[in-house]
Amino acid sequence: MYQVDLNSDIGESFGNYKLGLDEEVIKHISSANIACGWHAGDPVVMEKIVEIVVKKGVAVGAHPGFLDLMGFGRREMTITGEEAKAYMKYQIGALWAFAKSNGVKIQHVKPHGALYNMAAKNEVLAKAIAEAIYEVDADMILVGLANSELTKAGLIKGLKVANEVFADRAYNPDGTLVSRKVEGAVIHDSDKAIARVIRMVKEGKVEAINGEDIAIKADTICVHGDNPSAVAFVDAIRRTLERENVQVVSMAKLLNRSERMR
Amino acid sequence: MYQVDLNSDIGESFGNYKLGLDEEVIKHISSANIACGWHAGDPVVMEKIVEIVVKKGVAVGAHPGFLDLMGFGRREMTITGEEAKAYMKYQIGALWAFAKSNGVKIQHVKPHGALYNMAAKNEVLAKAIAEAIYEVDADMILVGLANSELTKAGLIKGLKVANEVFADRAYNPDGTLVSRKVEGAVIHDSDKAIARVIRMVKEGKVEAINGEDIAIKADTICVHGDNPSAVAFVDAIRRTLERENVQVVSMAKLLNRSERMR
Amino acid sequence: MYQVDLNSDIGESFGNYKLGLDEEVIKHISSANIACGWHAGDPVVMEKIVEIVVKKGVAVGAHPGFLDLMGFGRREMTITGEEAKAYMKYQIGALWAFAKSNGVKIQHVKPHGALYNMAAKNEVLAKAIAEAIYEVDADMILVGLANSELTKAGLIKGLKVANEVFADRAYNPDGTLVSRKVEGAVIHDSDKAIARVIRMVKEGKVEAINGEDIAIKADTICVHGDNPSAVAFVDAIRRTLERENVQVVSMAKLLNRSERMR
Amino acid sequence: MYQVDLNSDIGESFGNYKLGLDEEVIKHISSANIACGWHAGDPVVMEKIVEIVVKKGVAVGAHPGFLDLMGFGRREMTITGEEAKAYMKYQIGALWAFAKSNGVKIQHVKPHGALYNMAAKNEVLAKAIAEAIYEVDADMILVGLANSELTKAGLIKGLKVANEVFADRAYNPDGTLVSRKVEGAVIHDSDKAIARVIRMVKEGKVEAINGEDIAIKADTICVHGDNPSAVAFVDAIRRTLERENVQVVSMAKLLNRSERMR
Repeated sequence: MYQVDLNSDIGESFGNYKLGLDEEVIKHISSANIACGWHAGDPVVMEKIVEIVVKKGVAVGAHPGFLDLMGFGRREMTITGEEAKAYMKYQIGALWAFAKSNGVKIQHVKPHGALYNMAAKNEVLAKAIAEAIYEVDADMILVGLANSELTKAGLIKGLKVANEVFADRAYNPDGTLVSRKVEGAVIHDSDKAIARVIRMVKEGKVEAINGEDIAIKADTICVHGDNPSAVAFVDAIRRTLERENVQVVSMAKLLNRSERMR
Repeated sequence: MYQVDLNSDIGESFGNYKLGLDEEVIKHISSANIACGWHAGDPVVMEKIVEIVVKKGVAVGAHPGFLDLMGFGRREMTITGEEAKAYMKYQIGALWAFAKSNGVKIQHVKPHGALYNMAAKNEVLAKAIAEAIYEVDADMILVGLANSELTKAGLIKGLKVANEVFADRAYNPDGTLVSRKVEGAVIHDSDKAIARVIRMVKEGKVEAINGEDIAIKADTICVHGDNPSAVAFVDAIRRTLERENVQVVSMAKLLNRSERMR
Repeated sequence: MYQVDLNSDIGESFGNYKLGLDEEVIKHISSANIACGWHAGDPVVMEKIVEIVVKKGVAVGAHPGFLDLMGFGRREMTITGEEAKAYMKYQIGALWAFAKSNGVKIQHVKPHGALYNMAAKNEVLAKAIAEAIYEVDADMILVGLANSELTKAGLIKGLKVANEVFADRAYNPDGTLVSRKVEGAVIHDSDKAIARVIRMVKEGKVEAINGEDIAIKADTICVHGDNPSAVAFVDAIRRTLERENVQVVSMAKLLNRSERMR
Repeated sequence: MYQVDLNSDIGESFGNYKLGLDEEVIKHISSANIACGWHAGDPVVMEKIVEIVVKKGVAVGAHPGFLDLMGFGRREMTITGEEAKAYMKYQIGALWAFAKSNGVKIQHVKPHGALYNMAAKNEVLAKAIAEAIYEVDADMILVGLANSELTKAGLIKGLKVANEVFADRAYNPDGTLVSRKVEGAVIHDSDKAIARVIRMVKEGKVEAINGEDIAIKADTICVHGDNPSAVAFVDAIRRTLERENVQVVSMAKLLNRSERMR
């Protein structure tokens, strides 16, 4: 039987500002990437959302980003590897306290936004992120873009790595994501997007933007809870996966099974 | 044989801004209160200072404060108990990641500045702080002003509590600190200050500002490393303590011994 | 003919976070209090909203608050008069640049949230705020709670002062607002609230919480655009005012007329 | 007679953190670039330093940077032109309030650190910065690296532009600065650095790193007050300039004279 994880960014509210349909999307996912107060989220938000996530049986993950609330962590910053490593530890630790209070461990770490994108291409950042996780707790899973420098750095460091794929994004022939600036980078047809996901999970293949089939490992699918239609899309993905005999499980269960099967 | 802990605030530099003679004062203390990035400190500073502290055999403690870098955490803010609890967890967790990377646990938690002072008098804040520590790790020691609401809340919650005393501050007959606004609140004569500390440790007594002797429990003495004369004062305290057969030990050792003696 | 100003807090979005129905409420008000980036708002939000406000013929005002985005400026902070003065100037200046770009002056300054409430009672803060405005531009109007230390300090300093009243809040016999913690502090009946406003404007009187009539000067009424029902309430106030022959004008026009009438 | 301006970054302290020998370096310079609270500085620092600068007869300039106190504004951030424009206006306005309180205008605007360097090469940022200044007050002088996109954008927009040169930096044959990563980028010999400055001012030429002479316009020289030896170097430059009959004047005087001479 096939298995895949569904992950979503959660806990992005801040103070008086509310963002995202957290409680709706939590019903459909197996892993939650929880904002750690730098690009989004605050301690009160973290306290509440970790409790909810744990109660729903969803796995807790850290979603560290740049210290840029004004830009929501989506703007590149030229930080050093030393800075990246320290920033990761700080945010992972901050979330750890809330997970610990609820009797659970942090399952995974997925960098956010510009940090995620930079680490996909920048070896220094990728290595720093992998080291930060390894030094804090080598059992935490590193989530990175499939076929990226980040997942590569995680494997080299000896971390468990979850390869992330996107339902609604086109891929280059080398397995990287097509830049959003390119025509056709985003797949707007939901049915087509879901069909692609099913194929990635079951066949380990996806059709690249030039028409050729490429290999891709899909451990976890990124979904969104920004608005009602995004949540409806998650619901549709989940139901299609189940109909297609693909079980939605947390990435910890998925990777443990993979390890046993080696 | 008598024992006491010496604690100092450490790691208060931020980005390009340097503050305090950390490496000098570390030589003399047994417990370090490390700033957690809210009122002072940043992740790169934390990474470096935790490593130094651990190498020197000094115990690592969290020094969480208000999110007020501009005011160095010294300005009161009217936060709720729920907020205080979440803010404490966040900062304790952030430091935890650096302690964990260095193979040590957080020995103690001492709130900083205005948060410390408010929690000494405000039962709601005191309870929230004690709960935060208890929920994250009930083995961490709560450091609070001797005779305060904070130490009381810690004991009620079932935490290990270290009573903190100040060498250079006058005490009211009820055991609280004389406000800095009052004439005579600060003791400027070093010899007198040291003599008071010795008496607090050995006899459990201090002369209050009105001349009467009051009972005080001195588990840990707060010292400073802001400038060369502050460091010289710490050196003088330490040498006098040793001459007077008072051993300087970390508060964890001190409290464990106390427990065994019960 | 009677005149009154309607003011509302505007431009409270921040980065990726949207807040308030700015464009809806702007249609009904004569003066906009624009957040200056400390408790809410950011430069991009300010740039856009000032342009909209100016195009609609609504007067531009500064709405400076505490540097506490996480608490939305609603938490008291114990700052000094020197700090308050500098913080006010900084935020007024920041807004000035956007007003200047649009060819207008800042009409008024209304402190936000906890700063507003503290300055209503604290003479040191009130004086500092009045001095800040006076030193930057003595033509700017200071908006403060009617019968407060803030309006008093403004008058002493020689500023033009607009007395602010609240439609939905109960008053103490001494003219101050009844604390929200007290039963009956908020008036939930819209018709009753509007009737009180009309009376404040036309008769200069309001029934205090103990039933007695007290004198109150109503230059400007605080209204809200947080949600559709708040906007509907503003619309209702405005229509009732017009029906009652009370003209809604900017506080600059109102105060100039008052001056001419002296 | 030759003329040149000496500018230095001033007011970089923040809260409890002190940085730079402001009062020492102010004695030697004609224009002060005052930090605006984003990468350094805070309102209380600004209030105090503007008063000192004005009393000493030094011209007040804005030194806006990225919102990155932790990185001191030295880390590149990928912001849009719209963001750059709004961020510039905000910071210029903030400083304006303190200048206005002291009865002076802002003479010039010099972007800080990474923003300065990015704007030297990035046309979109350069244009946004020029537009921000133009829209707020077209009389303010834009200070940019000589031969850069920033000075070019200022001239296109119709601003007065001051070309900045560095005493201790090597130049490429195309007039841009040699990257600090390249051997020989920094000139450590003080006498040589001063001789280069004199030649830039008097002859409008400098020897590029490849040995060839290139044309360079030197309206203002960047000097530093970070430490005693930096201040001594400024003193030495100033005395040498005077001995060589080069008058140190504010850039406003310099550019006005240039205009008259056209």
